[in-house]
Amino acid sequence: MEISAYLDRQKKRVDRALESLFEKELSREYSRLAEGIRYSLLAGGKRIRPVLALAAIEALGGDSESLVPLVLPLELIHTYSLVHDDLPAMDNDDLRRGRPTNHVVYGEAPAILAGDALLTHAFTLLSDPVYDKVATDSRRMEVVYELSVASGLCGMVGGQFLDIVSEGKALTLPELENLHCHKTGALLRASVRIGGLLSGATPVQMEALTRYGEAIGIAFQIADDLLDVLGTVEELGKAAQKDAGKNKNTYPGLVGIDGSRRLAEEKCKEAHEAVAILGQKGEPLALIASYIIERRN
Amino acid sequence: MEISAYLDRQKKRVDRALESLFEKELSREYSRLAEGIRYSLLAGGKRIRPVLALAAIEALGGDSESLVPLVLPLELIHTYSLVHDDLPAMDNDDLRRGRPTNHVVYGEAPAILAGDALLTHAFTLLSDPVYDKVATDSRRMEVVYELSVASGLCGMVGGQFLDIVSEGKALTLPELENLHCHKTGALLRASVRIGGLLSGATPVQMEALTRYGEAIGIAFQIADDLLDVLGTVEELGKAAQKDAGKNKNTYPGLVGIDGSRRLAEEKCKEAHEAVAILGQKGEPLALIASYIIERRN
Repeated sequence: MEISAYLDRQKKRVDRALESLFEKELSREYSRLAEGIRYSLLAGGKRIRPVLALAAIEALGGDSESLVPLVLPLELIHTYSLVHDDLPAMDNDDLRRGRPTNHVVYGEAPAILAGDALLTHAFTLLSDPVYDKVATDSRRMEVVYELSVASGLCGMVGGQFLDIVSEGKALTLPELENLHCHKTGALLRASVRIGGLLSGATPVQMEALTRYGEAIGIAFQIADDLLDVLGTVEELGKAAQKDAGKNKNTYPGLVGIDGSRRLAEEKCKEAHEAVAILGQKGEPLALIASYIIERRN
Repeated sequence: MEISAYLDRQKKRVDRALESLFEKELSREYSRLAEGIRYSLLAGGKRIRPVLALAAIEALGGDSESLVPLVLPLELIHTYSLVHDDLPAMDNDDLRRGRPTNHVVYGEAPAILAGDALLTHAFTLLSDPVYDKVATDSRRMEVVYELSVASGLCGMVGGQFLDIVSEGKALTLPELENLHCHKTGALLRASVRIGGLLSGATPVQMEALTRYGEAIGIAFQIADDLLDVLGTVEELGKAAQKDAGKNKNTYPGLVGIDGSRRLAEEKCKEAHEAVAILGQKGEPLALIASYIIERRN
């Protein structure tokens, strides 16, 4: 199996579904805000979170076709976090995926509101009665809980906060791991678990998906840090080495480049072992773990 | 029945329940963010949205005691909207309820994150499995949908956007009504409807609650505009006449003070008529409508 072709196919399914969001709002009196939302939502990206959810669904034999709309909230949450993260008061980034950031194009207030609308719409999608035949209320309620906990104060938002207050301070490895476990790990873990919830995973399967999700969460962040140190502007579509420029704590900074690579490979191995119990159908999940530590952008 | 005593009693129930939120996070590594969230959440205020929901629940004979946690999300959403609205990039307000605004005390980035966390936690509360005996998954799912639609792009967030782009522009009365129908009306309407959803309202009762909610939404905004024109800093706990100072569109500006009062009374009468079918138990809702147009802060 060719993982890049697999990822590309899954990404396209997600992209097509995302295209239809906020479309009818383009003809409303707040069309400019809908445009701003779509500017960031449809800016490309690997769609790794919804793709992970789809891979988990397929690993458990779930109907990934009908469930596509219910994994989009993961991408909405991820996109809102990028829009707010890029704001002048936060990371103050002008460039994202090779394009000017949302607030640069639409202004700061509309960017704050675009983020708020994306976050809110994640829960509209999950609760929309049009999907009540696709997944029961109970399952969708579990997804609402999983997603909101992972992205709230005790998850992503808490991690963003830790990131901000850690700037310029030297963190220990456990502190850095805790930061990333919240900032990026929580939503990646939730992505896989939401796939499990939507396809009725057994407790044992859920446990395997959770271990997998936690391992790739750390691997993902290490790979990101390595890319930032080793990558170029062309490859990344954003300013490289900006983390070091801001005195941000990174894995290479703490354990060196070779140490970071070893740690990423360890986590990748953990991820492989976790999904081994899913058999042949779990292969894409294993391959995604390898892809994550080998990716170039 | 004395409406101010009633409102005070209901507000205290809501306040007590809000006090317990984000409490254990005060001992976590992101305690400062939890403090910031509680600073705005526990800053007082009339708690009119959850109180409306409780009044609707009681009007339909629902168990308002056990349902208190499930009406708190309305106050979380309202509070997040104030925190984001006060930001320098938005309304740039330094004072709210007689105290410095969130970003003045905690900084801009933490204020953005506090708003994001409050918004997200609204959905954590609604989906928390500890409440699955209090209301069925189906009912809570309807509440998630009602709340997210009312507060998203086609509701409150869209209204905030219209408010921002309307500054300095002269609106017509229908345009002003549309703005407020989104910005404040949608969440007030949802407050009453959520009370209905949580207590299993019949379609006829739901229709009555909806008409009531729409009428008080407009009455509330007119009263707010009148207070801004006629009130003093002492009464409001915030800068008075700031709307006029910013060339904001208001009801008194468009139809005069007397015209605004007449319109508010009309809406109040509509609200009374709507809840008449609920009988004696609907009396608090009727009295709240009268209170809204007579309040002094």
